[in-house]
Formats: sequence, structure tokens, C-alpha cells
Amino acid sequence: MRLDPKVFSVFEGINSEDYILGLYYMEAESTDILKKVEAIALEQSTGTWVPVSEETPEIREKYSARVLAIHEIPSYEDALPEEKVRKFIFLIGFPVANINGQIPQLLTALYGNISMAGKIKLLDIFLPESFVKNFNGPKFGIEGLRELLGVQHRPVIVAMFKPCVGMEPKTLGKLLYEMGVGGVDIIKDDELLADPQFCPVEQRLDICLKACDKVHSETGRKVLYAINITDNLDVMFKKAKSAIKQGANCLMVNVYTVSFSAMSALAEDSQINVPILAHPDFAGALFGSPNYGLTSSLVLGKLARLSGADMVIYPSYFGKVPMVKERVIRIGQELTSPFYHLKRVFPGPSAGLHPGVIDKLMDDFGIDVLVGAGGGVHGHPMGISGGVKAFHQAIEAVKSGVPLKEAAKNNKELKLAIEKWGTFEDTSHIFDLTK
Amino acid sequence: MRLDPKVFSVFEGINSEDYILGLYYMEAESTDILKKVEAIALEQSTGTWVPVSEETPEIREKYSARVLAIHEIPSYEDALPEEKVRKFIFLIGFPVANINGQIPQLLTALYGNISMAGKIKLLDIFLPESFVKNFNGPKFGIEGLRELLGVQHRPVIVAMFKPCVGMEPKTLGKLLYEMGVGGVDIIKDDELLADPQFCPVEQRLDICLKACDKVHSETGRKVLYAINITDNLDVMFKKAKSAIKQGANCLMVNVYTVSFSAMSALAEDSQINVPILAHPDFAGALFGSPNYGLTSSLVLGKLARLSGADMVIYPSYFGKVPMVKERVIRIGQELTSPFYHLKRVFPGPSAGLHPGVIDKLMDDFGIDVLVGAGGGVHGHPMGISGGVKAFHQAIEAVKSGVPLKEAAKNNKELKLAIEKWGTFEDTSHIFDLTK
Repeated sequence: MRLDPKVFSVFEGINSEDYILGLYYMEAESTDILKKVEAIALEQSTGTWVPVSEETPEIREKYSARVLAIHEIPSYEDALPEEKVRKFIFLIGFPVANINGQIPQLLTALYGNISMAGKIKLLDIFLPESFVKNFNGPKFGIEGLRELLGVQHRPVIVAMFKPCVGMEPKTLGKLLYEMGVGGVDIIKDDELLADPQFCPVEQRLDICLKACDKVHSETGRKVLYAINITDNLDVMFKKAKSAIKQGANCLMVNVYTVSFSAMSALAEDSQINVPILAHPDFAGALFGSPNYGLTSSLVLGKLARLSGADMVIYPSYFGKVPMVKERVIRIGQELTSPFYHLKRVFPGPSAGLHPGVIDKLMDDFGIDVLVGAGGGVHGHPMGISGGVKAFHQAIEAVKSGVPLKEAAKNNKELKLAIEKWGTFEDTSHIFDLTK
Repeated sequence: MRLDPKVFSVFEGINSEDYILGLYYMEAESTDILKKVEAIALEQSTGTWVPVSEETPEIREKYSARVLAIHEIPSYEDALPEEKVRKFIFLIGFPVANINGQIPQLLTALYGNISMAGKIKLLDIFLPESFVKNFNGPKFGIEGLRELLGVQHRPVIVAMFKPCVGMEPKTLGKLLYEMGVGGVDIIKDDELLADPQFCPVEQRLDICLKACDKVHSETGRKVLYAINITDNLDVMFKKAKSAIKQGANCLMVNVYTVSFSAMSALAEDSQINVPILAHPDFAGALFGSPNYGLTSSLVLGKLARLSGADMVIYPSYFGKVPMVKERVIRIGQELTSPFYHLKRVFPGPSAGLHPGVIDKLMDDFGIDVLVGAGGGVHGHPMGISGGVKAFHQAIEAVKSGVPLKEAAKNNKELKLAIEKWGTFEDTSHIFDLTK
């Protein structure tokens, strides 16, 4: 088995500024794993399945991907166990020069054709500054959003309209006003509400911005309306720009149906001078499988941040969408850890949040987190205003170190919320769709 | 679960020149994996199991290890399977500043106390140039050894004395002469032969060097004698230096019983101006388990090279010691791939080699490989000289593209060797001690 020493390498043999590293997990029955990984590295860079005359040694030297590590899991050394299926992780370096500063080719190089090459999942990507310098990333990030909202020392509350679709602009305006006055910071469209005839973008934006203004004039608080501009690409950009002309103060995009590159193009466009909220619907198609696709920390974390989202909504582990706890936290870390010049992004672990889990949420995330309040606001026994109050009471209690059940004694709204939905301990996973 | 954002990070949040990266595999029943990995990172850098007053945020910022990636294997996202045991890989960055340019602290930082923290295996280490620049590494390497020997376009043949122990210096001298004249390039001591009363170092060195001289004067070929100087540390250095004064042209060390740092100290010592052959005995204690220790590619590859070995003998997958094929090849790649300024090291996949597997060996390694010939030389029907000839005939056949069985028709020694031991296809694993 002659392997190409240009393809197999060690980390110490490359200039790490010149390579993007991809860390993969693979299951295979193959007995010729090194050949298989070599083929992957070549397929994803200079080569094809047969040698071709123009793939000179010079081309291979400069532009071929490098296999930097390959390890069996568990790390058997002397002999393999009986099982036919072998498990591996491997690390491949891809020349930045092949990709340049764009996201589509990043995906093509790291997980293009090999997405259809059997059980291979892209676990992680390690990006050199030479690549990331091509991106401005989020325009606002956590600090920018806080400044915009005038909210410094607590989580930011995001609420959406419920029911999801079917309401007319007038009703939305009424709901937005109620939520805003009640204490919600950002009101977002539902991901299912884009541009239907019964509630077109321009008209609902007009009404909702007026509601934002009304909240501001009555309370002095700035409230953002994240209008969902998701659409076919050309239309989306037209909508985004005309929305901004119309005075829009926040945009929402279903990132995974419009693509990372569309999200990135929006974020990098200097005319788009408002924060962008990234909705996660469709993301599970990319990260759901343990054996295919990319990890949730890439899809909802690193790549969303690189693409310039200011806020990322994603599943929590105590809501109605199932998610392993460590993934939820790790996505938050991908969004908020230092990352070259890219601003920190607001993580929004959401779906089925209610005031009784705020202690858990803030235990995991501190104050730099979006509280995604949907049903927990709209379904409160005292209505929207009571629902929002209950969230604020829970946040205050956690900040003061008072247990939620204790705080509920003196806070009627919180008390009713906990009576209805319980605390984390009572209700963990009751909404879990898999159970 | 409040995690320290100073400890959890992403690759893009560190200056990669300032960190040594450790890639680990872990199996655990823990449900609090992030806390466990955080504890590992802190235990291996600034912290202990309780917060202490002197561990200021500044100290943590500068000197704590960073968790850069953590992934479940397989990469479950929404829910975990029934199995109690979870499998993970994780990547931790350790500040170079904590370790400086030494090998013992590299081991202590990356796999010290945590070697006793359950099923954790160190899969790989990625070293920045800022660390490796403290080492000169191998003095000769592949190119230096070829020049010394005057052997350019073929594998280098290493043979050892058989039986392993029990012979007097005079007998060794006679055997060395026979092997050398027959065509062996390097004759090494057995790892079990160190400094016994019946065959003391000084005396056998004297006799063996004379035999080397005799070979040289009769054939013009330079032959090296790798004398085993393994001993307690102070004695080893005394032996090494007095051997060199006596004219020794090569040293052999049982690296894993004397330690990487002793090997490194020898290699970095300017008075030790001869190549060093590293013997792998005891290495299995470090790499054997799939769940504990370090991988064979680290133990026999990267760390041996960093420690300055010019030649590394290790198990092959077609000999009497079992080893998974990919490990054997990957160790070779660790020894020979570009690695900053460190010279390339001769891989010596050995134990039970005979002429009939030379095609397989050269298919995997090309010509930059040591052919470890022990029993295959001494047990040949035509004696030592016939045994060595058979190896050379096999090498020539492979270089000319002639199948071994075809070449055997015109080469009596090769024919007898293949009749006795077969080819790779016939004999694979017949020596395997596990079967």
C-alpha cells in the first residue's frame, strides 16, 4: 500500500496559518483505512479517483489536503476486536489558498462530495486567522445589541407572536405593543411567517414599527422587531433593503433554508445596518445524525457566527425540542468565546422556555443569553403582561440568589407560572417530542 | 452548571504558537462531561480540585489550559443511546509557557495525573514551533545515516546477534564480522544484552569495533555497531561517553526503560556524535491499551523523533509481534514527514522479518526503511552469509519490479528463504504471539 507522503503529514509539517483543519468522525468496514482517508483528502482537494496527467507533484505539494492525524476509536494498537465496523477520527488540513475567503467553498472543500461517501461526520473546523480575516462577522454582537437596547446587566428577552401564522398585521401590532410594554426586548416573527398574502412584509413592518415607537414613547425603552425576510435570494435582499429604508430595526433570517452564504452576504452588506437574528429551523437536517452531516456546534455555533448572525436561536435541553445538554452549552461557547476579531454572539437556547427554568438557563449561560419566550408569555394565566413579568421576576430572583420557589411567594406572576409549568426539576423534558 | 469561560474556548480564540494541543479519547459514565473535562484542563494546568485563593483570574487567563473542542463519539445530538458508557474525544491547549522546552513536563502537563483519572488515552499531540525550537532532535536522521554508511538507494539492513544473550565478546566479534561482510549495514545488540559479566560493554565494544574495521578493510563498506548502553542514568552517560572515546560509531538505547528525557539528553549532548538507535521494548506499557496511555504513533513516532532517535525499531504487522497495520504505517509517517527543523528518522518495523516480506515492507515504506533482520539472517539454511544475501536479493527484486517468487528462481539464497518462511501471503501472522 503505497501512500503519498505529500498527503500524509503531521501537524508539525504544515504552516498552520495556511491550512483550515477539519476534524472528522468516520465509521467504516474498510480494512484499508489509510487509503480511504487519503482518497478523501485528494477528492476534497487536487485529485480525483484516478491519477490524471495535470495533477503534477508541484500541484499536489501546494494544493493537496494533508492528513494530519488518524486515530481508531477506541485506540486499538495490537489487534482489532471482532466487530466488523471500525470507528475513526481524522484531522485533515485544507490549503486556505484553495478556498479563499468564502463560505460555500469552505463547505465544499471540507464536506462536499464526501458528504455522500458513507458514515462521515464533520465534527469540527479550526480556522486560521488568514481565512477569518475575510469576514467582518456580526455587526452588533452581544455588546452592540446591549447598547442598542440599553439593557446591560440581565439576559435579553425575545418573544414571538403566537399563534405562529394566521393573524393580520393589525393583530401583530397589538401583540407587539403588549409584549413590548410588558418588558420584552425583542419581538420576532415566527419562522413560519414570512410573506403571506394575509400578512405581507411591508404592511406588518409598518404597523409593528409604529408599535415599537409607541412602546418607546410610553416607556423610554427601545424595542426591536425582528422581521422575517426569508425568501428566494434576490427577493430577500430586496426585502431587507426596503425594510431598512422603511425603518426596520432588526432582521430575522431562517439561516438554514437560505444558506450560510446568504446570511453572510446580508451581514457583510454595509447597507444592512441592523442586527440579524438567525432562526435554526431546518438546521437539524445538517446536524441531526450522529454519523452524517456537521455537528450542532458547527452548524449553530461556529458557522453561524462566521456568517455574521448577531443572535442565534437554537434548541435548549429543557424545552420542547430534544438536545443533549453538553451540545446546548458548547454551542453557547462557540458563540461567545474569543474568536479573532469576530464579535460575540447572543446564544438563544429556546423552545418551550418558561420562567421556572430561568435559574437553570442562567446557571449555564450567565446573563449573556437570550431568553426565548413564546408560549411562556402568551400562555400565562394573567396574559401577555403577566407572562413577561414572570420572566423578569425569575431573572431578578436568580440575580439576587433567591431560589425561584422562594421568590414566587412574593411575586404573583412568577407564582402562577411555576404553578402552571413547574421548575426545571419538575418539568424537565415534559415537552420532549421524542418521549 | 457554571463553566469557566476562561477554560472553555475555541481554536480561533488562542494564538496557536503559544499552545501545545493534546487530543484525547475518553470513556466515561459521567453525565457531567463538560465539568469533567474542565476539571481535567484545570488539574493539568493552574488548578486543583478546590478553588484556592492564589489562583487569580489573571493566573487562570494566562496559564490555564483551554478546552478547544469536545465531541461525543458517535456524535449524538438530540438524545443519547441506552448505553451507560459515553465516548468522547476532546482537544485541550496547554500554554507552552507552563512547560518550556522539556519533555518530562510535556508528559506531566498532557498526561500526568490524568493518567490515573479513568479511561483517558492521549491520541495525539500537536506541537507549535515555539516548543520544538528548543530541541535539535536527531543528529543524523535518514540522510545523515545514509551518508555515514554510503548507502543511498535501498533500505538499510540492521541485524542483531542471535541468540540474544549468553555469548562471549569473541563470539559476537565473529558474528559481527560475518554479518558485516555478508552485507548487513548496522549490527545491533539485543535489547536483553546490556552489560553482563560474561560480556561487558568495554570488552565487546573493542572486539566488535575491530570486526567493523576488518569488514571495512576487506570490503570498503562502513558498518556500524549499535552498542546497547542502557543503564541507570548516570552510568548510561558514562558508558556512552567512554564508548565514544573508545571509537564507538553507533549507540543503542532501550528508550522506554530509560525514558524519553534520557534519550533526549543523549541526543542533545554535543559529545554524543554518533547515531542513536531506539529500541522499543517496554513501549507497550505506554501504548498497548485502547483506553489508557498514549497512542503508538506518539510513543514510537512523534515523541521518539522529538527525543532525537536516528532510528526507531518497532513492531511490524507481518512479524512475530502483533500490531494493527495502519499503526505501523502511521508511525513511519510520524518519523519521516516534514516536522519543522527536525531531521527525518529511519523507521524500523521489525520482529520476525524474513526475505519473503520485503516486497510488502517496501510497498509500504519505499526505500527509507530499516530492514530488521534477526532470525531471518541467523536461521537461513545457508547460514548468516546466505541469509543476508537473500535479503539483498529480495530488495533488488523489488527495486526492479520482479515478483519475489520469480526472482527466487535465479537466486538460490532467496529461494531457500522463501521455501523456509514463505512470502507475506503465505506466512502473515504465523509468528503472531496472540494466535
